Formats: sequence, C-alpha cells, structure tokens
Amino acid sequence: MIKNNPTTAEYAVQRLADLGIRHVFGLPGDYAFPIDDAIESNPNLTWIVCSNELNAAYSADGYARVFGASILSTTYGVGELGAIAGVMGAKAERLPIFHLVGMPSTRLMRTRKPLHHTFGDGEFNHFHQLSSATACVSTILTPENAITEMERVIAIALSQRQPAIIAIAGDYAQMPVIGNPIQGVPLHQVSPPKSNPQELECAVKTILQRLEQAQQPVILPCFTLLRYGLTEQFTHLLKVTGIPYATTRIDKAVISESHPLYMGMYRGATSESALREYVESADLILDIGGVLFDDVSTGHGSARLDREKIISIHPHHVEILSNICHINSQSHTYSPVWIGDVISNLIENIKPISSKKFPQPSPITLEKNASQAITWQTLRATMQNFLEAEDILICESGLSVAFLSSLLLPKNCSFHNQTLWAAIGWATPATFGAALANPQRRVILVTGDGAHQLTANEIGTMGRYGVKPIIIVLNNGIFGIEEFLAGNKSNIYNVLSPWNYAQIPHAMGCENWYCQKVTSLDELNNALEKARLHNNGAYIEVVLTEKIPPALSEKIYAQRYQLLPIDTYLSSG
Amino acid sequence: MIKNNPTTAEYAVQRLADLGIRHVFGLPGDYAFPIDDAIESNPNLTWIVCSNELNAAYSADGYARVFGASILSTTYGVGELGAIAGVMGAKAERLPIFHLVGMPSTRLMRTRKPLHHTFGDGEFNHFHQLSSATACVSTILTPENAITEMERVIAIALSQRQPAIIAIAGDYAQMPVIGNPIQGVPLHQVSPPKSNPQELECAVKTILQRLEQAQQPVILPCFTLLRYGLTEQFTHLLKVTGIPYATTRIDKAVISESHPLYMGMYRGATSESALREYVESADLILDIGGVLFDDVSTGHGSARLDREKIISIHPHHVEILSNICHINSQSHTYSPVWIGDVISNLIENIKPISSKKFPQPSPITLEKNASQAITWQTLRATMQNFLEAEDILICESGLSVAFLSSLLLPKNCSFHNQTLWAAIGWATPATFGAALANPQRRVILVTGDGAHQLTANEIGTMGRYGVKPIIIVLNNGIFGIEEFLAGNKSNIYNVLSPWNYAQIPHAMGCENWYCQKVTSLDELNNALEKARLHNNGAYIEVVLTEKIPPALSEKIYAQRYQLLPIDTYLSSG
Repeated sequence: MIKNNPTTAEYAVQRLADLGIRHVFGLPGDYAFPIDDAIESNPNLTWIVCSNELNAAYSADGYARVFGASILSTTYGVGELGAIAGVMGAKAERLPIFHLVGMPSTRLMRTRKPLHHTFGDGEFNHFHQLSSATACVSTILTPENAITEMERVIAIALSQRQPAIIAIAGDYAQMPVIGNPIQGVPLHQVSPPKSNPQELECAVKTILQRLEQAQQPVILPCFTLLRYGLTEQFTHLLKVTGIPYATTRIDKAVISESHPLYMGMYRGATSESALREYVESADLILDIGGVLFDDVSTGHGSARLDREKIISIHPHHVEILSNICHINSQSHTYSPVWIGDVISNLIENIKPISSKKFPQPSPITLEKNASQAITWQTLRATMQNFLEAEDILICESGLSVAFLSSLLLPKNCSFHNQTLWAAIGWATPATFGAALANPQRRVILVTGDGAHQLTANEIGTMGRYGVKPIIIVLNNGIFGIEEFLAGNKSNIYNVLSPWNYAQIPHAMGCENWYCQKVTSLDELNNALEKARLHNNGAYIEVVLTEKIPPALSEKIYAQRYQLLPIDTYLSSG
Repeated sequence: MIKNNPTTAEYAVQRLADLGIRHVFGLPGDYAFPIDDAIESNPNLTWIVCSNELNAAYSADGYARVFGASILSTTYGVGELGAIAGVMGAKAERLPIFHLVGMPSTRLMRTRKPLHHTFGDGEFNHFHQLSSATACVSTILTPENAITEMERVIAIALSQRQPAIIAIAGDYAQMPVIGNPIQGVPLHQVSPPKSNPQELECAVKTILQRLEQAQQPVILPCFTLLRYGLTEQFTHLLKVTGIPYATTRIDKAVISESHPLYMGMYRGATSESALREYVESADLILDIGGVLFDDVSTGHGSARLDREKIISIHPHHVEILSNICHINSQSHTYSPVWIGDVISNLIENIKPISSKKFPQPSPITLEKNASQAITWQTLRATMQNFLEAEDILICESGLSVAFLSSLLLPKNCSFHNQTLWAAIGWATPATFGAALANPQRRVILVTGDGAHQLTANEIGTMGRYGVKPIIIVLNNGIFGIEEFLAGNKSNIYNVLSPWNYAQIPHAMGCENWYCQKVTSLDELNNALEKARLHNNGAYIEVVLTEKIPPALSEKIYAQRYQLLPIDTYLSSG
C-alpha cells in the first residue's frame, strides 16, 4: 500500500516492504532519525533494535538466508562502518541486504562544517564509498531520483543477490518524492533476468549433447539455487533426469538431504571414499548454480575434478571448458543466460538417464559402549539423534561446522554456515535473524565459545523479541579451529576469557529461557530433551571433555597455507 | 633488543615494541598466525586477546590515549574489516594505532584461488584498500622493504598521530628481513618534525606582535597537545604568559583542571555565562593545537568567535586569518612549522601579560535537601564528590558525557571522551585499554546502558587480564541521547533490551568483582564507597529515576540538524 504523498524515506522503506520483508534490523542515530521514523511508522514493518551494527548485519544476513532478502538501517559513519564486516559477508555469500544509511542534512554538508561522526574536515563522502564496497549497487536518494533509483537498486541487488546501500540525507529524507510512487511485488513474484534466446538455445543444446554421451554423470548443485528461489525447479530437474547429486560444504542441504538421489558431501580427500570415487570418476559433472570449489568446501583444495568434465550453469551464464591446460584451449561461455531458463529447458528436453548404482549417505551413529565423555565424535552423534524434520540448523565456522557438516539431515532440515566468508561470530546473530524470518520452524545454533564471545550480546535481543532458538555453546576454552590449524602448540592467543556461558541469557534479560551447563553425555541428552519440551529459548553450555580433535602438524599447516617453498616439503617429507 | 636474523613479522613487531608499547590487542586468525606467533614470542609484548575486532580497536584507542600509541593485530578480511569502525575513530581523534594485518601467502594469492575470507573471485586487494582508509599511511611488507617501510610508516603515523596499516603475507612474514635491522627509540624520544626556520620566525614574530597589542587574550588549548606529548611545554607557556585559558569539550582536561589559569569549558551558548562573555569578548584567541570547533564541542555550533581574532597554531602549521568574509581577504599560513617549536619560541620571547580578572570554574554541588532520586543532576554531583586526584575518567558519548563533561576535575584527573567521532560503544573497551596502559591510576567509566550493550562483551577480557576499573552503567532503558534529541516521542527504536547489567561481569567470568545494582542516592553512595575500597573491578548499575532531562522539542531538533528550510523557522517561531 502506497501512502499518499510519501516522503523520500517513507517511499524507500515502503518500496522495500513491498518485497514482503517484515523486519528491519539496525540501530537508530540522530542523522538517521527521518529514516528511523519512516520505519517505525510503516504498518508492515517491525523495528528490530540490535545491540550493535555488526550484529544487526549478521542478523539481517540470517534473515535473508531464510526469507530471501532483508533490511538493515544504520546511521552515518559510525553506524554504517560498524556493519561493514557483516554486510561484506553477505556480499560474499550472495544475500541481498538492503542497507539504509541516514546522512546529515544536505544543508549541513554544504557548509562543510566539522560535524560529529566525521573527521571534522568538511568531507562527507568518505564513508559512503567504503560502505558501497560491501554492496553490488549503491545510491544516494533525492526526492527527484528516489522512484527510479529504488527500481534500479532493487533490480540489481536481486539480480546479483548481493547487498545494496541506500543513503539519504536527513532533509531530503523528509521531503515528498517527486513523481508517481510505484507499488512493488513480493520477492517471489519479481521477474527473473532475461536470457538471450540464441545463447540459451546453444547452451542447452550443448548440455543435452554432453548429457546424452555421459555414462556416469553427477550433479553438483550450488547454494545459489536457494538464494534465487530455484530449489523446487531443481528438484523437478532431478526427478526427470534421475542423475545423482552430491554437495560441497557450502552447498550443503540446498535441497532436503532426504532426497533419494543425494549421495552425500563431496569435499575432496576428506569425502567418504565411495562418494569420492564416484564423483571423481564421473564423466560429466553438471554444476548447477556456479559451485565455488573454495578451499574450505573442498577439503582445502584436495578436490580432484577435471575441469573439462564440468559444465557450470552460473546464475547468469553457462561455462563449458575445453582443455584449459593448453593456452589455445577454448572456453565456451553463453551469456546472458538465466539459470532458471536453462533448468526449465533441460526439464522439457532431457531424456531420463539410467544411472549406475551410486553411493548413499548414512547418518552418524554413536559407537556402542561410548563413554560419557563429550568428544567431537560423541557430540556429533548426539546432534544427529536430536535433529528433526524441518529444523533450521545453524553452524558457526570453526570446529562446529567442521564436525557437524557431516551430519545427514532429516527431511527438509535446512543448514546454514558462512563457509566462504567464514567470519567467526556470524552464527549467533544469524540465528536470531533466521528465527525471526520463520517462527514456525525450530532453529538450532551450534557455536564454539570463541566465536560466540564476539557477538553474544545479541542474546538479549533474542529474548526481547521473543524468538525461541536452541543454542548450544561448545566450551573448550580456546579458539579450537585456530589451535587445531596451528598444530596444537597451546598458543596463548588461542585462549579465551573464561565466561560462565549458561549465565549469559539471564544476565541479558532472557528471563524464561532454559539454561544449563552440561559436562557429560547423559547431562547433554537430558538438557536437549528439556530444551525440546521448553516453550521458550534454550541455551546449553557443553563443556567438552576433548578440547580439539588431533591437530594438524605445523608442517601440514605450512603446506596448506603455502608458507614454505615447495622444495621444503620435498626435502623433508 | 633486536633478535638475530628476525623474520619480517618479528621485525615489524619488534620495531613497534621499541616505541615502548607493551600490549597488543586483537584476535588471532589462520592467515595471521606468523604475526600472531611473532607477537607471542616477543619478550616485550603481551598478547591481549579481545572478544571481537571492534572492541580490540577501541581498546587500542583507549591505550593510545593514555600511552601515546598502540598495536592492534587482526586477520585478513573478516578481522581487519571488523576493526574499521573502531580504527576510523582513532583517525578522527588523532591516535596512532599500528594495525597489523595477516594476509594469505603470496603463493596462494598468485594462484587466484577461491579462498575463505574472500569473495572467491581470486582478488586479494579489496580489503587492504578499505582498511587503509582508516589510516594516514599503509604498507604491505616484504622481506626486502620491511626495514625502510617500517621507518616510513612509523614516522608518518607519529607525525600525524593517526593509525597505520601494516599488512604482511603469511609466507613473507616468515622469511628473514633483508638488510640491517634498526633499533628504534621509545615514543617520547622520537624526533619531532622539523620547521622551516624562516616560516617559524615569521609565525612567531606575528604571534608576538598580536599578543603585545592584546588587552584581553585567551588561550584555547587543543587535545592534540596531549597527543603530541606537549602538555608540559604548554604548562610552561601558561606560566610565563599568565594568559587564562578555557577548553571546548573535546579538549577537556588536556592539562589538569586544577591549573590556576583555567577558566572552565567554553561551549558556545551552553557555557557558564561569565566564561562565555570573557571568551567571546577576548580581543585575541590563541588556539594552541588546532581547536576543531566541532558541533558537539561548541554547543551545537553556537560558538560566537570572530575568526579574525583567532590565531591557530596547528601541529604542523600556523594560520592567522584576516577578514574571511571578503573574497580577497588574506589568510596567512606558515608551514611547515612544528607546534613544539612555536611554543618554545614563544616561551623564550614572550612578555608576561597582566590579565584582567577572569572567571573561575567551580565544582558541581548537590542541592541541599536533594531527594534520594537519581536524576542527571544528583548523579553529576555525586560523581563530583567521588572523583579523586589522578583518576582517569572515561565518559561514553550520549547523556553521560553531556552531563559529566561539566564536572570540575581534581588535580591531574584525566578525562577521555570520543567527542568528534562519537561512536556509542567506544567507552567500555577504551576503559580496558586505558587501564592496561596505566595500572597505577584508578580508571572510572561512566556509560549509558544503550552504548554499553554494543561492546559489553569486553568485560570478560577485563576480568581475564586483571584490570580493576570502576564501571558505572546508567540504566534508563533507552538510548537516552537519541530520545532527548528526537524530542522525547517515546520512539520504539530508542528502547533497549532489558539486561540485568549487574549480572554481566560474573557471567563473563569476572569472579571477584564487586557488582551492585542501585536505585537511590544512598545506595549509589554506598556502592561507590564499596567500589573505592574493593581491590578488584567494580560494576555499579545505576537505575535512573529520571530517564532523560527535559527533551528538545522536535522543532529545535529540526533546526539543529537543518532538516527544514530556514523559512520554516522564521514563519512559525
């Protein structure tokens, strides 16, 4: 619903609300009051006041993972810069966060006065440039450009599924927009990008030819299918082709892992051996969505896939490589070609493939006669038992995800991890955002203690807004993944301040949460059962018997990070 | 002491330690391990592991305010970007933070692989550019350039008293530096910048002439005197001239407020009237250090000072304005002229001035028959009584500083506030940094609850490293300054999550701290007395009877922020 004669701020806010977004994460600030007021007065939006801007950005990230897009609101300079590290992660992991920034009045900026939240140098463009580096598109709205600019910004951000920066000066924010306001459509009704018909036809024809010749094709779907709302279409494609699929870690659970064609996770040398063999011996790998093959997802670069066997269907183009080792090899790129068009064309024209017998994934089980010790292995098996269909499982970067990504997830259980950007601290506020985006589903967070300390002040916000996550904090007293990677040298820099984690929710005002510290498997299972039945948030501090798994040697670390010349590896094994 | 054959990381770290810095704030990260190790193995440095990068930056800011410089260490991308908002404040407020950033191995970067902590695009220069915007100088070290680059970076950062970014790739960090390592000197022995003798002579001559003609000169010293270690010299200048001085808020307590020539704080229309009259009727204002006259310091731009009467002695130049209203007016700028040289030349050549009777500041007193209610007024008077000589008082931005900046501080009591950058959340970690920098002095923090929530996770770090601040958290349940500025409209976006603040230190592991929640003046006084006697950290949650002082009207807010055309003010009063 368009308000009559909206101000520039009201219009910008409403045009974003048209997408179906219902919450705005952020903090107020004096320069941003006109925007803050426009959010507060919008009947379709709820202000979500976070405890700081980084947390607000991560919360918006989590919301966008579940809903598809989100809104963040910060003030000039001090606010927008506090969000940079968080919004940058959303740029890396393809999440459209619409970031509203309130700038000083143009009247003040034109005087070049030394105002607060500046260097006192009369320059007001320093920070917009920096914020814009977190986005795929940015704008400074005026009453005159607001209507066209909002269409441009929304179209680009959704086309790229990356953040947008929308800045408005305080005086302009309060002036009526000039022109006829546009009523937008909900996110899922936004028109997809257009393909060039000839390019699309050639791409599909080539893919079909290659598929017909393939004896052992494998599909690797990418998380971008989830971002672009294409998972149903992809599931349909699986059904008509019968080709089995695996995922890299960043793509885990892009569709339900209970799908009969799911083989498990492919992560190079650290995959299950049968799966690894099947994927690496495939004669055609159909990458649907533009799989990244990043270092963490692929067992630190241990993937052994022949680029010539891969057809990559990126969101906006298709890439089919010939022998890339030859300087004169040909890479065929078809562009602009929209992935949704490619998939629907394949569905119409593909012939079902009688696949060979392919590997099946199995759930993690607890060894018989397991002791009461909480180790990474027993913890993983316990979590496997605890998960239910439709859960949203959020794993923090570090040992949490290193272990829990190998769980086989129940039906329609979602999985979120910030695999590529991998900033510790992301998961706690992202859990808040995810829980707000879909209050019907159970949201479970597993985080290490080190990562949790970065952003634990968002727990209070969860209590305030009544979300009910189950939070599992793994207390080993150290930055476990760092200690593991660094070769278990007991570095002082990996040691954490000794928090009493289970006291945190109450200290931050989550009065009715179930909070428990556990030190054995029985206690953990009891606590999980209580959390399951508790009709509010739950917070379980798990004291690990085993701090970290057997660590890498320093030598392996140095190899992995290529800190030594290659000869060093050769000469001393 | 120079280690034999140091690596690039070891050399960079040691060269900074030569300045006398004894602590490094930050968080470890895999790309930064070689730097992290160099810090840990340096016998003169202690690793201070903070709870996140923003807090680490603010802690380094607080440390630099007290010691003069500081070191911050973060990892590539995710770490350095998390610090941006904090380090940017140090750039605005002139604090040399040396920010070490660990980049991936050059071998990995040259392959353009999709690594974690990147966009997966093979580009590795995105974030260094952004971090560099927080600094006055930046470098990427190699074994070959490390020795010369460290000299350049240190010289520029200290000359500007602003942050420096020093990035090192993981493999280069572990290779020996090439050349002869340089042994640096402690910060206070670093050579000051050189003046041009003719420019200096002309500047001093002009200043002396103007001083001789002056009947009622006033000095406004700037906080930069503190940054550049010139407060003793400045005190000497006061002694030989006898000219009285006032400070703006950002310059408060640049030297002890018990100085007999101190008149009080000048902040435009909100000054004490006698002081305001004396300063505004002065016929010469000697600005020593480059006073900013920023909006917050000067009662929101209500300073009424004639630019023609001001001689500004900036750190590196002297500026003497003629009538600036005329297009053809002349501004005389003498440059390069080092402020230390100007002051010492003035001391040698100046004739004492027999000043008129000038205003004297008075301490805040509690009204007789004051009730038990904790209002902003009674709180201020209580704090006035509590302060002792040599205290370091740190005030958070917002109502805390708005009220407490008018305290008259005891002998050698220092005052810190982030007045220009004014990012809420700064004060809590800055208190930690200040306390580490000088464990001999009592450090007192006064912060609002809203600002405190942004960075309260640093409390645990304080406990871990054994600092003993007295922390006073003002609980009014809202962002008070925002509510005040916005005209007390009870905006939902100014309401905070309801924390149980007094439980926070214990939840974060500060086992032996004194923690108390108080709701009346008697309780507050009792708690302060207990805190005074307690041999560890103290944390007092003060529940305010009065949420905010009488608020600005919306109209005044709109005028202050120039949100309305000037005619709007005129037409409706």
